[in-house]
Amino acid sequence: MRLEILPVLGIGDVTEGDDLAALIGAAAPWLRDGDVLVVTSKIVSKAEGRLVDVPADGPERLAARDEVLAAETARVVATRGATRIVQTHHGFVMASAGIDASNVDPTRLVLLPKDPDASARALRAALHERYGVDVAVIISDTMGRPWRNGLTDVALGVAGMAAMRDHRGEVDPYGNELQLTQMAVVDELAGAGELIKGKRDQVPVAVVRGYLGVAPPDDGAGAAALIRESALDLFSLGTAEARAAGLRAAATLPDRLGDAEADPAAVRRAIDAVAGVVAPGTVFTHVTDAEVRAGMTATVPDWPTSATGLILGAAPTPVDRPDLVRFGVDLQRLRTALAAEGVSSNLLPPPAGTTAVASLAL
Amino acid sequence: MRLEILPVLGIGDVTEGDDLAALIGAAAPWLRDGDVLVVTSKIVSKAEGRLVDVPADGPERLAARDEVLAAETARVVATRGATRIVQTHHGFVMASAGIDASNVDPTRLVLLPKDPDASARALRAALHERYGVDVAVIISDTMGRPWRNGLTDVALGVAGMAAMRDHRGEVDPYGNELQLTQMAVVDELAGAGELIKGKRDQVPVAVVRGYLGVAPPDDGAGAAALIRESALDLFSLGTAEARAAGLRAAATLPDRLGDAEADPAAVRRAIDAVAGVVAPGTVFTHVTDAEVRAGMTATVPDWPTSATGLILGAAPTPVDRPDLVRFGVDLQRLRTALAAEGVSSNLLPPPAGTTAVASLAL
Repeated sequence: MRLEILPVLGIGDVTEGDDLAALIGAAAPWLRDGDVLVVTSKIVSKAEGRLVDVPADGPERLAARDEVLAAETARVVATRGATRIVQTHHGFVMASAGIDASNVDPTRLVLLPKDPDASARALRAALHERYGVDVAVIISDTMGRPWRNGLTDVALGVAGMAAMRDHRGEVDPYGNELQLTQMAVVDELAGAGELIKGKRDQVPVAVVRGYLGVAPPDDGAGAAALIRESALDLFSLGTAEARAAGLRAAATLPDRLGDAEADPAAVRRAIDAVAGVVAPGTVFTHVTDAEVRAGMTATVPDWPTSATGLILGAAPTPVDRPDLVRFGVDLQRLRTALAAEGVSSNLLPPPAGTTAVASLAL
Repeated sequence: MRLEILPVLGIGDVTEGDDLAALIGAAAPWLRDGDVLVVTSKIVSKAEGRLVDVPADGPERLAARDEVLAAETARVVATRGATRIVQTHHGFVMASAGIDASNVDPTRLVLLPKDPDASARALRAALHERYGVDVAVIISDTMGRPWRNGLTDVALGVAGMAAMRDHRGEVDPYGNELQLTQMAVVDELAGAGELIKGKRDQVPVAVVRGYLGVAPPDDGAGAAALIRESALDLFSLGTAEARAAGLRAAATLPDRLGDAEADPAAVRRAIDAVAGVVAPGTVFTHVTDAEVRAGMTATVPDWPTSATGLILGAAPTPVDRPDLVRFGVDLQRLRTALAAEGVSSNLLPPPAGTTAVASLAL
C-alpha cells in the first residue's frame, strides 16, 4: 500500500465562466476512480466569478478592500495592527476572510467560493458525468493558525468522502479505548496536495491516489462538519478582545445575587486581590453565618432574603466626601474581583447600628 | 514529478532503550537519500523512556495524572471541564501537554520527547552513520486546533530540512509580491504521513519520497522555528481566561495617566457605555479645553500637570453617604470602561468651587 501525490499540469490561467471539469478532465485524462482531487480554491473562485474590482493602489484601494472585508465578515475575532482575523459567513476563521490579492490582476480581489461544499459536489458530479470517474474533490485554501508559525493548506469544501475519520470507540492493542481521535483527514489531504502544488508555479490541482479504495457513492456531509460552533470554542475571541470584554463587563456589572452560596475561598481570594490597591484602613469582612444574615432583613429594609452571605465594608475614619467616593471606587474593585471569581453581588446601604459604610449581598 | 507516501511495516512494539535507527533500518532497507521519515512521537518517547508509572484507575490515577500534567506544563492557556490546554516547556500548545494514555500499558503514561528536534537529529545521524542514507526526519504528534473540528498530525521536531518554505519576496505571474506565505511544510508532511499511518494499525513510521531532491547537509533550525512566542500570539489565552483577566485588571486598575491625549471619541464611548447602569442623575463631563485644564492646578493641589484632560463627576442631589458610595462605584465603572477603550485615569478630589463630587485626570 502506498499513496501517490500527482500534480495536474497544464491547466493554465482560469477566468470567469471557465468550465473547471473540462479543464481538469483535459489536463488529467489519467484520473481514476477513488482519486482525491485537491483543488486550490482560487481557481474555483475565479471560475465562479467571485472577483471584485478595486483600485490598483492608494488609499482608495485600502478603503475598497475594507468594504469588501466587512461584507465577507460575519464576526470579528481578533485584530492587531492591519491584521483582521474574522469568521466568514461560511463559519471559517481566517485572516482577511480569505480575500486574496495574489495570482490575480492588481485591480481585482478574489473572494472565497460562496459555498465550497457545493462547488466540490458540482465538480465531482461533472467529472463523473463527462469522464465516468468517481473521485472525491477537496477545495483547499491556505490558513494561518494560533500558536504555530507558518501556514498550511486545509479544506474549505469536500465531496465524495467524509471530512473526518473517526477512531472513537476503537480499542488499541493495550485495551485502551481511543478517545479524541476524530482525524480531520481532508485537512491532511489538502496539506499533502499543497506539498506538490507549492513546488511548481501554476499547479492549482493535485491528485492523491491510493487513499480511498473507491469514492463512496454519496457526497458526504462536506467540510462544514469541520466548523466548530464559536460557543463551543475555547478561543472564540482574541486574547486582547476577550480581555477588553472583561473590562466592559466590569464597567456594567449588574446588581444581582448568585444562584448558589458563594465559595468562602473564592470570596477570600477576591478580598486579597484588591488588598494592595484599596485605601489604607479599608476593611472588607465576609459574613457567612446564617443567623447574622437573618438579622440583616431587620436592619436593612431591602435586604434580599435569597442572599447567601454579605460583605461589610468599613472605610478609614474620619470619613469625609472624597473618602466616601474613594470607598465606593474600592468597593467596586472588590465587586469586580468577586465577578472574576464567579461571585455576583448586590450593592446595599449598610445595616443600621453598625459602623459599616456599605454592604454587599452575595 | 510525483510524491509517494510509503508505510514502514514491521517495526512492532517499541520499548524503553530500543534502538530506533536499527528498528527502522531493518524494516525499511529501501530508504533512499532525500526521503523524509515521519516518525510518530510515541515510539520516540518510548525508546527514550519518557514513561511515567501511574495507577491503572480510580481517583489515584487522576491525581497522579494531574501531577504529571503540572510538571509538563509551562503555562495554562485554557481550561473547560476536564480539558486542559497548556503550553509545554518546549513551547507547544496542546491539550494535556501531549501526555498520552493510548497504545501503552494502562499503568503508564507517555510524555512527549524531551527535545524532539534533538531526537530527530540523533535519528537522522544514526541512519546516516549506519546505513549511509541522507534523510530528513520529522517527529510528529496529533493536535487539535481552535475553530476547526478534528485533529491533524503536525511536527514536534525535524532535522535535515527547514520547517518552513518561504515564498516571501517572490512575485506571482501578475506582478504581485507574495506576502504572508511561509508554508509550514513539515506540518503538511507530518499530516501526509498520518494519512497512511492512520489507515493501518501499528505503523508508526511513514516515508515521503520525492519531496526533497536531496536532504541538505545540515540539520536546520528544527521545529522550534514553528513555535510562536506567546507575546506575539493573538490567542495566547483562552477566551474565558482572558475575559477573567480583564475583570481582574479592572479590580486592580492603577491610578495613572496615559502616555498621550485621550481620544475624545473613546472617552465618549466609555461614558455612553456606563450611562445605563449608573445612578440616575449622575453626570460625567469630559473637559478637554487646555485653559480649563490649566486652571485645575490652581484648584486641585495635587492635579498632575501632565494630565491631558479631565472628567468631572456630578452626583444626584441631595448627596448623603450611601449616594457618595454609589457615586464612587459608578465612577469606578466609568474608569473601567475608559480602560477598555485604552484610556488610563487618575482619581482626584473635585476642584474647589465646583459642584463636582470627584474628578478624573486623563
